[in-house]
Amino acid sequence: MQVAIVGCGQLARMLALAGLPMGMRFSFLALPGESTAPVDGLGRVVVATPDLEPTALYEQLGQPQRVTAEKEQLPIALLRGLAPYTEVHPNPEAIYQCQHRLREKATLEACQVPFTPYRAIHEERDLWAAGEALGWPLLLKHTQEGYDGKAQWRLTDEAAARQWLQGPAAGTLGPASGQWLAEPIMPFEREVSLLAVRGREGHITFYDPAQNRHRQGILVSSLAPAPDLPAGLLPQMQAALQRLQTHLDYVGVLAMECFIKGDQWWVNELAPRVHNSGHWSQQTTAASQFENHLRAVAGWPLGDTELQGAAAMLNLLGVPVDQHTMLADGASLNWYNKTVRPDRKVGHIVLRGPALDEVRGKLNKLQSKIYGPDF
Amino acid sequence: MQVAIVGCGQLARMLALAGLPMGMRFSFLALPGESTAPVDGLGRVVVATPDLEPTALYEQLGQPQRVTAEKEQLPIALLRGLAPYTEVHPNPEAIYQCQHRLREKATLEACQVPFTPYRAIHEERDLWAAGEALGWPLLLKHTQEGYDGKAQWRLTDEAAARQWLQGPAAGTLGPASGQWLAEPIMPFEREVSLLAVRGREGHITFYDPAQNRHRQGILVSSLAPAPDLPAGLLPQMQAALQRLQTHLDYVGVLAMECFIKGDQWWVNELAPRVHNSGHWSQQTTAASQFENHLRAVAGWPLGDTELQGAAAMLNLLGVPVDQHTMLADGASLNWYNKTVRPDRKVGHIVLRGPALDEVRGKLNKLQSKIYGPDF
Repeated sequence: MQVAIVGCGQLARMLALAGLPMGMRFSFLALPGESTAPVDGLGRVVVATPDLEPTALYEQLGQPQRVTAEKEQLPIALLRGLAPYTEVHPNPEAIYQCQHRLREKATLEACQVPFTPYRAIHEERDLWAAGEALGWPLLLKHTQEGYDGKAQWRLTDEAAARQWLQGPAAGTLGPASGQWLAEPIMPFEREVSLLAVRGREGHITFYDPAQNRHRQGILVSSLAPAPDLPAGLLPQMQAALQRLQTHLDYVGVLAMECFIKGDQWWVNELAPRVHNSGHWSQQTTAASQFENHLRAVAGWPLGDTELQGAAAMLNLLGVPVDQHTMLADGASLNWYNKTVRPDRKVGHIVLRGPALDEVRGKLNKLQSKIYGPDF
Repeated sequence: MQVAIVGCGQLARMLALAGLPMGMRFSFLALPGESTAPVDGLGRVVVATPDLEPTALYEQLGQPQRVTAEKEQLPIALLRGLAPYTEVHPNPEAIYQCQHRLREKATLEACQVPFTPYRAIHEERDLWAAGEALGWPLLLKHTQEGYDGKAQWRLTDEAAARQWLQGPAAGTLGPASGQWLAEPIMPFEREVSLLAVRGREGHITFYDPAQNRHRQGILVSSLAPAPDLPAGLLPQMQAALQRLQTHLDYVGVLAMECFIKGDQWWVNELAPRVHNSGHWSQQTTAASQFENHLRAVAGWPLGDTELQGAAAMLNLLGVPVDQHTMLADGASLNWYNKTVRPDRKVGHIVLRGPALDEVRGKLNKLQSKIYGPDF
């Protein structure tokens, strides 16, 4: 089966490496300016240009039987244009809903899934009303751009808000601008993400929930299963994710990042794709998130997601590859073939063991070894 | 790290797919006439020609830091020629010892490892003497050619022996011809293979022993751990394999196929490479035989070989790919990208579960589904 992946980053790389053994072949669509190093050698790369018609694109991608995506920030018209020629999973409308924070919030609301309160900021007066309603400080987020903590501003008070209006927001406001939203700073205790894969016939399988640790907005590590979840919380989260996938008629892996405080939880955001917080599944389950995403997209039976024992994932951020350190103590290395730049995600390490405490200990030790004790 | 693999079959393919995530890049050396489909797209392919000098070969392979092999039947001069330019693992002399049945027997004897008795057949009179000493029927084997039961003849009596002398052996005999050996038909009850990986610093790790089932000389399935081994037998086998690896100064995976009868065991043959009977390690251990072979060859820390529960591998012999069947019930598929021909190994399936009996049940069910009940 020929599969085209929109995007050429590490997620595309790991999808291809998971799909090749199942008899798939791949081509990749590079968005303008995107580096293609992670997928070099794994299939044909086509560069998206504005004048490329869907027919020509379909041909250049090798007439794929399936198209999927490794990122949500992509020109949705591109996927819609391919849909008459081939099966696109997840469907373009599902990605369309998730790629814009206001549409995502509306989807969560429609599915009765709890989420961080917000106000859309179209015009200046919306900002003052948001401060009134949600209280300062406010977190201002771009509705489409931004990942790893980018395109976000923490406005401590009205003075900071005025600076923001003259800075990042300058020239972007107007009736129904749709470019910004404001959220209160939520007092969450931890972030847990849940990934589900839904097959083409509607069957859903979950991975164990993972607890995530960030540094300056960038995911550093995930630990699965997330320790000590309050009783009844996981079934609620699973039911919510199931409602979302069903509502969106979603095929493939959908990731749901949640904040937790006490026995309260709510969604921070969705990612309509395989997700960094599920990378631990690679060397610890019979079918990783990458393999199961492709099985779902192809319409093949889903694989086993069961985690025996515990697993951890440590992101490699801006560090050169060093297999002597990174493969020690039974660790598995996944290197992305990217040029190393400060804080750039260039690979990750997967750890596993029979018990959570042991794996957490290994994770902390490895993190110190790679980043130093003060990281 | 740039690694060159001699051979372009499924073992090279699976080595590359295991090495890419660890930051390796690959090139492949195709022997004359060899199909390169399994490694298509995974790295540069160089075709070996008799006039290719080692320097040019080293250059064309991309100046690899390591060279390894996926087969033992290769021109050993080729590896010896590359050794001054780069590290070759396993070392050419170890492969040289294993690629010829008479040298292999001598190695086993030197390491005090039990093996099937034999007589070298250089001339006609050696055959009659073998019949006298070992008794009819005899199994005649070519000393270099032959795998999957090829290049072997079962000679029931002296009349059959005379036919063989006029047929396959015609023109091949003479003093020290070294082309044939004779073995008695051994009354073994089952075949168990043991794989070990030895690192560059001499550390050795074992995989669980696997029990193999053949059909017409071709491996059909493996089950790990091999059930109900007599007490004390596995430590003996492990100690023997350790002596062999140490004796050969071997780096990488070495496979030892053993016959078992009651509490007796002896070696049928060695394979100086990753081995079909270890494919179950792919989706069931943290570091498969492919990954660990490459870790050893590179000089990196070895990975965890522990099998939790049980695993099985079913070879796909001459059947077209059908993911709906082959991925059902939590199975993992490994397809080789080869043209399907009768009885040709074109892929395999890995199964796993908490208990041996359950996995064996799944294996039998899947085998019936793919090959029919009378296979």
